[in-house]
Amino acid sequence: MNEAVAASVTDDPVAIVCGAGTLPFAVADAVMKRGRRIVLFPIRGCADVDRVVAYRHHWGALGQFGWFCRVARSEGCREVVFIGSVRRPAIWRIRPDFRTLRLVPRLWRRYRGGDDFLLSGIGQIFEENGFRLVGVPEIAPELLMPEGPLGRHRPSERDEVDIRKGLLLLDALSPFDIGQAAVVADQRVLGVEAAEGTDLMLSRIAQLRETGHIASGLRHGVLVKAAKRRQDRRLDLPSIGPQTIERVAKARLTGIAVSAGSTIVAEPQRLQEAADAAGLFVTGVPEQALGK
Amino acid sequence: MNEAVAASVTDDPVAIVCGAGTLPFAVADAVMKRGRRIVLFPIRGCADVDRVVAYRHHWGALGQFGWFCRVARSEGCREVVFIGSVRRPAIWRIRPDFRTLRLVPRLWRRYRGGDDFLLSGIGQIFEENGFRLVGVPEIAPELLMPEGPLGRHRPSERDEVDIRKGLLLLDALSPFDIGQAAVVADQRVLGVEAAEGTDLMLSRIAQLRETGHIASGLRHGVLVKAAKRRQDRRLDLPSIGPQTIERVAKARLTGIAVSAGSTIVAEPQRLQEAADAAGLFVTGVPEQALGK
Repeated sequence: MNEAVAASVTDDPVAIVCGAGTLPFAVADAVMKRGRRIVLFPIRGCADVDRVVAYRHHWGALGQFGWFCRVARSEGCREVVFIGSVRRPAIWRIRPDFRTLRLVPRLWRRYRGGDDFLLSGIGQIFEENGFRLVGVPEIAPELLMPEGPLGRHRPSERDEVDIRKGLLLLDALSPFDIGQAAVVADQRVLGVEAAEGTDLMLSRIAQLRETGHIASGLRHGVLVKAAKRRQDRRLDLPSIGPQTIERVAKARLTGIAVSAGSTIVAEPQRLQEAADAAGLFVTGVPEQALGK
Repeated sequence: MNEAVAASVTDDPVAIVCGAGTLPFAVADAVMKRGRRIVLFPIRGCADVDRVVAYRHHWGALGQFGWFCRVARSEGCREVVFIGSVRRPAIWRIRPDFRTLRLVPRLWRRYRGGDDFLLSGIGQIFEENGFRLVGVPEIAPELLMPEGPLGRHRPSERDEVDIRKGLLLLDALSPFDIGQAAVVADQRVLGVEAAEGTDLMLSRIAQLRETGHIASGLRHGVLVKAAKRRQDRRLDLPSIGPQTIERVAKARLTGIAVSAGSTIVAEPQRLQEAADAAGLFVTGVPEQALGK
């Protein structure tokens, strides 16, 4: 009897295409803890070289779609998850294999749209080639932010007002396929994330305080992150981790509010400890409060 | 016969409350060219010390409202214009005089709202004290951006698509009393201005190119600036100048689109020369195209 046929779907290892950051490894660990095997496909120039070695892995590059299909199939993978950040490469840095080349016209149209548009196009292509695209909510739901506060601190009434304004703002930005975060302090929008990412936006707030563009006295303001409306939940969900706490503290904000059930928390325990130590709240806003 | 009564309104000098930048002097020069006198009220720590000396002036500080009313009246001023950027000061740095102190509760409520809310509150207070608040469109309309291209270069069809997306984005942000600028490249939103201002947003785009977060090859992308919907045209209009060209060139964008009739061009001639030399377009988008 053919082994591949006998195996149930969940006996297949999950192919984890890894970008930068610690998130890919948090997902890999969570999946393995559930008793399922994984195979990492770290992207050269993005994934963390030192951490990859602890897992079964095959280094790849953007543009090697034919290669990926061959190797992932030979590993018995049927499900693929994309996780971690990937810089948009300069087009001429990509060395596409033959299979990828045939997809170029399609990808080019996508590339010129926003991130979501590009990502959903890539997802579709994987599916057409017999892989099922899965997301963190499906394979590692324990990494999703729960509703309510994580840790000891809670948002004040003043913070709640800023959180509401931030969520409304992110909702208004939703059609523009833009960043997923903003900083609001005393109802004033201090920062909106676009191509720079959350970390750089937070460093900017810290700088604006130092230079006196923003009042530098007491801590005030909230980092608000939320998944985009109608976002494909298998791709590019917002995420926070212990390093977010550090940057929020440096920006002298009072805490973090994220959309519950659609934000990934890479290391919940470490994040909670860091938040408690820094005196910051981290709270999950229920989906129904997001007006979606 | 009383001299003050005999004088027509336009014989009164305009009181120009000056923040940072070259804009206050461009406005002063334009008003004087029209044959009207001006008195500068430069704000300490903001206005350009070297340039102020060339004009009749009285240095003041934020919080000296009673002093301003006295001095402006003794100069015969009835009309006041606010121009140039003012950093939001840390509250405890302001040394209010008695008259200002009485206004503190009202200003505090305004301070906690957005910029527009604060500015319109201040405008109202000046009016209640017998001054008429005027704006650049009224006293120096020649400084407003005209419709269509300024200089030799014009936006391409690709640029036009980015301009439309940028205007739609700024329109969606309008209710949030936020910045007035964004950068869009190939329909992707690269940057949204909030508390940092246009200059810092442009430096960020330049940095993101250097670090490879944004493709760093050919020039692409447009800086889009527009006055907020329902904005009080007497206060805080968006502005561009020769230094904007320099920063847009460094960010490797293709040009600038601004709302015609509601964007101030500090030095139109120098701006046009700089744009031509840098190979950038600068275009004024008619109000009706803004969907307002």
